[in-house]
Amino acid sequence: MAYADTRFLTRRRALSARLAGMRIDEMLVTNLHHVRYLSGFSGSQGALVLAKDLTAEISTDGRYTTQIAEEVPDIEAVIERPSPQALLKRIEGPRRVGYEASHVSVADLEKLEEACNEDVTLVPVTGVIEEIRLTKDNTERLRLIEVAELASQAFEDLIAAGELAVGRSERDIAADLEHRMRRLGAERPSFDTIVASGPNTAKPHHTAGDRILRRGDLVIMDFGAHARAFNSDMTRTVVMGEADDFTREVYDIVLRAQLAGIEAATPGTRLVDVDAAARSVIEEAGYGDYFVHSTGHGIGLEVHEGPWASQHGEGTLAEHMTLTIEPGIYVPGRGGVRIEDTVLITQGPARIITPASKELRVV
Amino acid sequence: MAYADTRFLTRRRALSARLAGMRIDEMLVTNLHHVRYLSGFSGSQGALVLAKDLTAEISTDGRYTTQIAEEVPDIEAVIERPSPQALLKRIEGPRRVGYEASHVSVADLEKLEEACNEDVTLVPVTGVIEEIRLTKDNTERLRLIEVAELASQAFEDLIAAGELAVGRSERDIAADLEHRMRRLGAERPSFDTIVASGPNTAKPHHTAGDRILRRGDLVIMDFGAHARAFNSDMTRTVVMGEADDFTREVYDIVLRAQLAGIEAATPGTRLVDVDAAARSVIEEAGYGDYFVHSTGHGIGLEVHEGPWASQHGEGTLAEHMTLTIEPGIYVPGRGGVRIEDTVLITQGPARIITPASKELRVV
Repeated sequence: MAYADTRFLTRRRALSARLAGMRIDEMLVTNLHHVRYLSGFSGSQGALVLAKDLTAEISTDGRYTTQIAEEVPDIEAVIERPSPQALLKRIEGPRRVGYEASHVSVADLEKLEEACNEDVTLVPVTGVIEEIRLTKDNTERLRLIEVAELASQAFEDLIAAGELAVGRSERDIAADLEHRMRRLGAERPSFDTIVASGPNTAKPHHTAGDRILRRGDLVIMDFGAHARAFNSDMTRTVVMGEADDFTREVYDIVLRAQLAGIEAATPGTRLVDVDAAARSVIEEAGYGDYFVHSTGHGIGLEVHEGPWASQHGEGTLAEHMTLTIEPGIYVPGRGGVRIEDTVLITQGPARIITPASKELRVV
Repeated sequence: MAYADTRFLTRRRALSARLAGMRIDEMLVTNLHHVRYLSGFSGSQGALVLAKDLTAEISTDGRYTTQIAEEVPDIEAVIERPSPQALLKRIEGPRRVGYEASHVSVADLEKLEEACNEDVTLVPVTGVIEEIRLTKDNTERLRLIEVAELASQAFEDLIAAGELAVGRSERDIAADLEHRMRRLGAERPSFDTIVASGPNTAKPHHTAGDRILRRGDLVIMDFGAHARAFNSDMTRTVVMGEADDFTREVYDIVLRAQLAGIEAATPGTRLVDVDAAARSVIEEAGYGDYFVHSTGHGIGLEVHEGPWASQHGEGTLAEHMTLTIEPGIYVPGRGGVRIEDTVLITQGPARIITPASKELRVV
């Protein structure tokens, strides 16, 4: 027989331990990221119910009968759709059943309520699984490192192959980078790849268009790989052919800001202080008005998740959290630079898991 | 000055005409697909309010100030986040304001209610914009044709280049096809590309893994391209090197079923009858138990949207709807075949917009 990976049981234990404090008897999990996180099931329709005493039921439909038995050998599956209702129907009251209020629509809540037996009370719950996900366990850290190194490797290979070149379009370079990530094992990009060149570097939300790269252009590349449920995120800025004084000055400021942010990213540090560490370098250099976003965010099952390192970020860092450190300067009409790593928070200095060089590269 | 494309105004007119019948004074639109559909704004944070009298307000945050002015020249933008609350705050009662109950979470509804002035009543609304989207206007049809032809071209180019070959992995072939779609102008695949080979063809939900293609394999490729907000979806099944009797028999049945489905796809036909037209061919050939999914679905802003051609599909087809016709046979231990086109419903025969040949190809 197959043995379940104990990481899923450990995660379910963390959730069930929190239920008692909320006077919840059972928790209905419908967010598919969370179903996968707590059970291993990776299908596109399903739900999980977890009780205070750690008993669990899982459900999917007939398309995934074989898959759920392989992926979740330690929980009996109910094959019936829609799965949330199928599981709720089986709960006999009196019970207080939590549901994920941030992930269930108002219209779906009505359907859930109709499926409940008398004496079952649905209770809105927010942020509890998200809070458990804030600190990454061994498997998650391993997956995050793998996928970050994969993306970093694809970027290095792209440059070594000469695919980042004057005369090519932003779109074609993005396509080549995504192709390299895919062939190295990514299932898809974590988000639409950004290749911003020349004047487009001044727009933080440009993606990749038809513009052809020219000599002297700054090029911002912001990209990530998704594999086995986890994501990566990194940014490098290079210059084509030659760097002028503006480029060297701004690059140097952003790099110093980024290094200051990484240095500040230690357990117990307030998130506003991580943001301030990077931001103050840019402000002191006189470019404060051109750093128009926050310093970073956590990454895991989602590309953007807590913790949030911004001027309004709440809370402090803890060991085993992830954080991107991604300051940038964007000067309209001139151009922009952003440098981004993903780091793991450790007891010592933050560990950078996106290893590509951050020296100013003249390609 | 820039003039707004009238298609957005036409779509807003269709929505506002429906509000009166529901006793709704204004509709808060928060689903970003719908904000884009009704205004042209393509940013990642925003909302729209549309009144019975066609007056509209739109909102986003400071990242998109320039972009929203360019994309939505005919509506003044409120630059404030979160946008749904920013717009609600500005509404003075007494007003009944509809919100998208299928797209607003229970937790977010609470935040919306807090933002409302006294005398403003939030009213749940479901399916109204979805119903307008069921029939595609000129621009939508043009976009859908472009993106379907793009994906079809990428598939033909892949075969012509010899990239679909014995000795290569499913993953590498998927990566090459996605790369070709990307370079032809796709922003991303519409969904995870399926390349299922040999025994994997018997699993309708296999994506693309490490298996290496061998001579004699069936290979199912199901793929789509996303560009300018619209999606495509098509499937072809080929055979590597040589086709045995099983392959020829099953391929012939699926192709006949698919052609029967397309022939049935005319205005006024019930969706259950479109499904039955394809399904009955497979049932009569004795493979009914191996056609384990429905015949097709609409496609547009979403890959899967109404109408639904299944054994339980409600309603009838109308001119300018889209529909995939995608019967399949999946025999465990033997293999599977699926053939899928996307069609536009016209007054005459359905128009196939995914032109790649459906003859059995021996590659």
